[in-house]
Amino acid sequence: MGNSFGTLLKLHSFGESHGRSLGGILEGFPAGILLDFSQIQFELDRRRTNQGIYSSSRKESDQLQILSGIMDSKTLGTPIGFMVENGDAKSEEYQSLKDIYRPSHADFTWQQKYGFRDFRGGGRSSARETLARVVGGAMAKQFLQLHGISLQAWVSQIGNITANITTSPSQMEVEQSKLRCPDKKAEGQMFALIEQLAQQKDSVGGVVQCQIEGVPAGLGEPVFDKLQAVLAHAMLSINAVKGFEYGSGFAGSAMKGSEHNDEFVLMNQQIKTTTNWSGGIQGGISNGQAIYFKVAFKPIASIGIQQKAINMQGAEVDLEIGGRHDVCVVPRAVPIVEAMAALVIMDFFLMQKINQA
Amino acid sequence: MGNSFGTLLKLHSFGESHGRSLGGILEGFPAGILLDFSQIQFELDRRRTNQGIYSSSRKESDQLQILSGIMDSKTLGTPIGFMVENGDAKSEEYQSLKDIYRPSHADFTWQQKYGFRDFRGGGRSSARETLARVVGGAMAKQFLQLHGISLQAWVSQIGNITANITTSPSQMEVEQSKLRCPDKKAEGQMFALIEQLAQQKDSVGGVVQCQIEGVPAGLGEPVFDKLQAVLAHAMLSINAVKGFEYGSGFAGSAMKGSEHNDEFVLMNQQIKTTTNWSGGIQGGISNGQAIYFKVAFKPIASIGIQQKAINMQGAEVDLEIGGRHDVCVVPRAVPIVEAMAALVIMDFFLMQKINQA
Amino acid sequence: MGNSFGTLLKLHSFGESHGRSLGGILEGFPAGILLDFSQIQFELDRRRTNQGIYSSSRKESDQLQILSGIMDSKTLGTPIGFMVENGDAKSEEYQSLKDIYRPSHADFTWQQKYGFRDFRGGGRSSARETLARVVGGAMAKQFLQLHGISLQAWVSQIGNITANITTSPSQMEVEQSKLRCPDKKAEGQMFALIEQLAQQKDSVGGVVQCQIEGVPAGLGEPVFDKLQAVLAHAMLSINAVKGFEYGSGFAGSAMKGSEHNDEFVLMNQQIKTTTNWSGGIQGGISNGQAIYFKVAFKPIASIGIQQKAINMQGAEVDLEIGGRHDVCVVPRAVPIVEAMAALVIMDFFLMQKINQA
Amino acid sequence: MGNSFGTLLKLHSFGESHGRSLGGILEGFPAGILLDFSQIQFELDRRRTNQGIYSSSRKESDQLQILSGIMDSKTLGTPIGFMVENGDAKSEEYQSLKDIYRPSHADFTWQQKYGFRDFRGGGRSSARETLARVVGGAMAKQFLQLHGISLQAWVSQIGNITANITTSPSQMEVEQSKLRCPDKKAEGQMFALIEQLAQQKDSVGGVVQCQIEGVPAGLGEPVFDKLQAVLAHAMLSINAVKGFEYGSGFAGSAMKGSEHNDEFVLMNQQIKTTTNWSGGIQGGISNGQAIYFKVAFKPIASIGIQQKAINMQGAEVDLEIGGRHDVCVVPRAVPIVEAMAALVIMDFFLMQKINQA
Repeated sequence: MGNSFGTLLKLHSFGESHGRSLGGILEGFPAGILLDFSQIQFELDRRRTNQGIYSSSRKESDQLQILSGIMDSKTLGTPIGFMVENGDAKSEEYQSLKDIYRPSHADFTWQQKYGFRDFRGGGRSSARETLARVVGGAMAKQFLQLHGISLQAWVSQIGNITANITTSPSQMEVEQSKLRCPDKKAEGQMFALIEQLAQQKDSVGGVVQCQIEGVPAGLGEPVFDKLQAVLAHAMLSINAVKGFEYGSGFAGSAMKGSEHNDEFVLMNQQIKTTTNWSGGIQGGISNGQAIYFKVAFKPIASIGIQQKAINMQGAEVDLEIGGRHDVCVVPRAVPIVEAMAALVIMDFFLMQKINQA
Repeated sequence: MGNSFGTLLKLHSFGESHGRSLGGILEGFPAGILLDFSQIQFELDRRRTNQGIYSSSRKESDQLQILSGIMDSKTLGTPIGFMVENGDAKSEEYQSLKDIYRPSHADFTWQQKYGFRDFRGGGRSSARETLARVVGGAMAKQFLQLHGISLQAWVSQIGNITANITTSPSQMEVEQSKLRCPDKKAEGQMFALIEQLAQQKDSVGGVVQCQIEGVPAGLGEPVFDKLQAVLAHAMLSINAVKGFEYGSGFAGSAMKGSEHNDEFVLMNQQIKTTTNWSGGIQGGISNGQAIYFKVAFKPIASIGIQQKAINMQGAEVDLEIGGRHDVCVVPRAVPIVEAMAALVIMDFFLMQKINQA
Repeated sequence: MGNSFGTLLKLHSFGESHGRSLGGILEGFPAGILLDFSQIQFELDRRRTNQGIYSSSRKESDQLQILSGIMDSKTLGTPIGFMVENGDAKSEEYQSLKDIYRPSHADFTWQQKYGFRDFRGGGRSSARETLARVVGGAMAKQFLQLHGISLQAWVSQIGNITANITTSPSQMEVEQSKLRCPDKKAEGQMFALIEQLAQQKDSVGGVVQCQIEGVPAGLGEPVFDKLQAVLAHAMLSINAVKGFEYGSGFAGSAMKGSEHNDEFVLMNQQIKTTTNWSGGIQGGISNGQAIYFKVAFKPIASIGIQQKAINMQGAEVDLEIGGRHDVCVVPRAVPIVEAMAALVIMDFFLMQKINQA
Repeated sequence: MGNSFGTLLKLHSFGESHGRSLGGILEGFPAGILLDFSQIQFELDRRRTNQGIYSSSRKESDQLQILSGIMDSKTLGTPIGFMVENGDAKSEEYQSLKDIYRPSHADFTWQQKYGFRDFRGGGRSSARETLARVVGGAMAKQFLQLHGISLQAWVSQIGNITANITTSPSQMEVEQSKLRCPDKKAEGQMFALIEQLAQQKDSVGGVVQCQIEGVPAGLGEPVFDKLQAVLAHAMLSINAVKGFEYGSGFAGSAMKGSEHNDEFVLMNQQIKTTTNWSGGIQGGISNGQAIYFKVAFKPIASIGIQQKAINMQGAEVDLEIGGRHDVCVVPRAVPIVEAMAALVIMDFFLMQKINQA
């Protein structure tokens, strides 16, 4: 249970951080579509890279290997098996953590759930698991592109520093920013904050915002699989996510109906809305306007500061996690948010093919 | 697609606002459990009732009818079919809305999706659909109670008025408040706001908070069906919900790891945490602490104020929705939030039975 | 688990023989299709009727009630809820069987599985459960008809009497035969056999054959959901079925490849096969030829002859089941076989919409 | 769709005959179980080997590679990813078949379904796909063994030669027979038949029988997922299968109820039946007696005899398939039948954990 995502387009994921490989099967991808594998590798590289001194020391090349489902770079309609080998895993470093439940990590809960866990590098609870999502999402993105649908995510907040970005930036603008925050001023402040926290061996959270353009009206499956419900599911399934809001979000709770209602108008003989508090979704179904949402990430739990922990024998121990740690993983989450969103939208796109006679 | 919720415990829902009846099938409920049907009716009544002048004029008795799956008040392990008849539906009133796409309603998107829709009372997009959720959830609550798990939701915000409630209130405290907000001072301000908006024929949103106690460590199915991911899915599937956060939520994005990490300690030979920014979930799995989350509701779209709308023929029309309308449905959402949460937790409870050998 | 059938077109079934009602939800039926409800009632009547003295004494009118999903006789794309009330159930008659495990009935196994069972009229193991299948199947048939696909089943064997029917009969031919066996000579012998067994208070099995015409090439989802695999699943899920074969079937095991291979030829610029040992399916996918299969039914277990049984207290008891019993239910199984086949084919038809880009 | 099997225990399969590798993910296997990987490799070898001159010329070592889900030979409760590389695939040999629809092969139907197909070695329609089943099944067998459940299949018929085997043979007896038919006399006749057909470049079908012992009462999920229905689904999903029957099977259709009913008796304070026409299943649920069934295989379509075929351009061509071919693959199907049966039984075993409160 819990290792597959999607209804018609299904991503089945496997792999532990220090096992032989991580990967997955993407099932339900239509036949006959030419894929650009360099683009998929590009997305994997986006996930991996975190610039400068604030990144994890692990050097994975994360080279995609396609196992099935493709011939002459075209999809066969059969399951697309793929994997990335775990080259640089130093399991020995984790021996000292074998018996310890680190604060706010998944050590304790996985032990409780399964009675047995892979303690090396977080095992399956490692963020390396998101590799499979990025591969699947990168394929979905190419499908969506063929249908005029595009996605873009960016960092809109780190710590208490909020970017001032009012229109969805381009991928180039986002990628030119080392923190994937294309607001120069905010980015500078974020860097300063990260540098300061790096010295303190501390970490910090942030917010990723995402916008989807070109979604036709009609996607989403009420009543339980409303478009926003499955997006929320997708986002909250990403490590370290604490919240999701779309359209007006939490701020919408304080609004009046007369402010919040999006009036319909005709533009170029198409039905549009003058405002978009709905976030492109009404009654769980896309209305043709831009879909946008925010995803909140907590600070990562691995910090260099000494902490109290409990070991499996039930004794309290002092814990000082050595090595270099990410101060802030939120920039690396950007391609993951995009990947999950792409899987969701493509799945609903396929489903909509069967709703009308 | 989209009308079933759950993996082992499945709620299949059916029904339009003005059809013969609404109801569902609850499948996967274990055999041999004695149910208290007056408690289920009580939950239905909680959903229906909205006190005072600010409520919808429709008078539904919402009497539960059990169709199958029960003998001598005990579950048979077979599907529990149930329904509530639509007694007081005045479809004629909706004839004038037949061709109109109301702002921020689902009229336009349903028409786009299906090419044909039941315009009467919102059809399947009506909040009456939540009846089936409340019935299923009420049964799940009774199962959870047998295992020491309890849930309580309440209104924590209406408009820009926020309640000051620091510990989870009891059901009695919540139900004694007409707005389900057991902070007398805030409730008074909320009433004043609602009364003012009623006169203005306007509406307002709000926030429901929920806390779940007694959940054993080990529930939740990473990587895609993390406990919080399925809770978010459940909550965002409720009409008018715009956001979900659990534990530290969006505020957690601004925190440092050293602040946010929940240290483990031993209390009475059990592993607990000193703080609970994790919201009772680590790595997608419950850790035995209280689970708590917030759900944001937008203001309802039906307002008496005159608005611009578009009709199916593509013409702009003036829209003035007559009759009395709810100003704020958030208090009625409290039992719905609880119901969905109960379905989620019970489903994970059943799943956990098969994870260990 | 186990009460839903189908992938995109899903039938969720509920109901016990002596509960308030039996019914189901048909989900995934496309919107905008005009249904003929008299045809659906006709199929229900086909299921119910068994002519002459050899039928069960229970008089159910089996009147279909539509609960949702339909407006102006057209499908809304939302779940189609429906039920049939259990009017004539005489539960008292079953009090004497409350504690007894009847030979080759499901009393013992249901008790073992659930620890608690509805002993009245077989509870959920009653063949009345097939009502929901027939309703769902009747709707699927109408969809298939719109796409040029038709189904016909008939009785090809009762006891050791085999009909000599070489081409698929019409529905009229089948319905004009009281035993649904349009081979006059065989039917006469079957009647004689049934009459003889009625006097002996015994029962007998039989075989239903089914043919599906007009299925386009391309339906079926290898590798696990091959067309024949899902058909087999569907048929073996019907009460009393012991076997399934399609195309050459068991006899094909004794054939040589050179005999069994179906050569392709061009007819009217379409690819056909000269023989059809494949039964219209190759590699799990329809090839455009007729699909045909056989379903074996055991004799029903309820006989008037005195038998030995065991009660729940573990004592051996003599069992003499009173009242009139069906000698042979195979003719009544004909519409059920058709209904399940229709659900399978329609589901694959919908799935095929998403396999190509 | 169609590449996953199972409900709680799920096998997700991937791979084409001439792609990089074939494999799968086994999900839902409980944590903490020590697996014997030499036993799994042994099952893979059973699938591969076909003795003597009548076997396919392809020499695959079929070495199992575990990718995830295992640490220290124990299951982690996470997805078990695995694969077998396609070492010896000679794709060039298939270039001449690129455009040809071979009789009774899946070439035509796959082309119709997907519009694009991997023609090399049958692509995904190749029987090499069953590798993933055998691996998954071998793991399931080890789980079942821990719970006292064992399975054994054997060849009971080749062509028109039927073995005389009245009690379930041991694995040793089956494996000591080159044709997996532990009836010396029949085996001799079968060999003679195969030799004769090899000279004629022809092929022949057969029947595999399987018996499952030690299944506790209570497994199977009525109404749609009756134990026999899912077994039938499993078996008909195997390449070349044309029929399935269990217990009395097709012969049961000719029996009278008084003959067919299995009377319950008490033996050693346990409820048993004196006969077992039910095949160990009543009402879709296991009753504790042996489960047994037969699976019919057609002759394989690849024969050396010249045949007529059609190419993709719609022209009739003469087809002579070169190289050596299997005359009869039925002995190789024995471990596949066992594997699928093991997956089914283990899945139902897990499900039964949640049916009672």
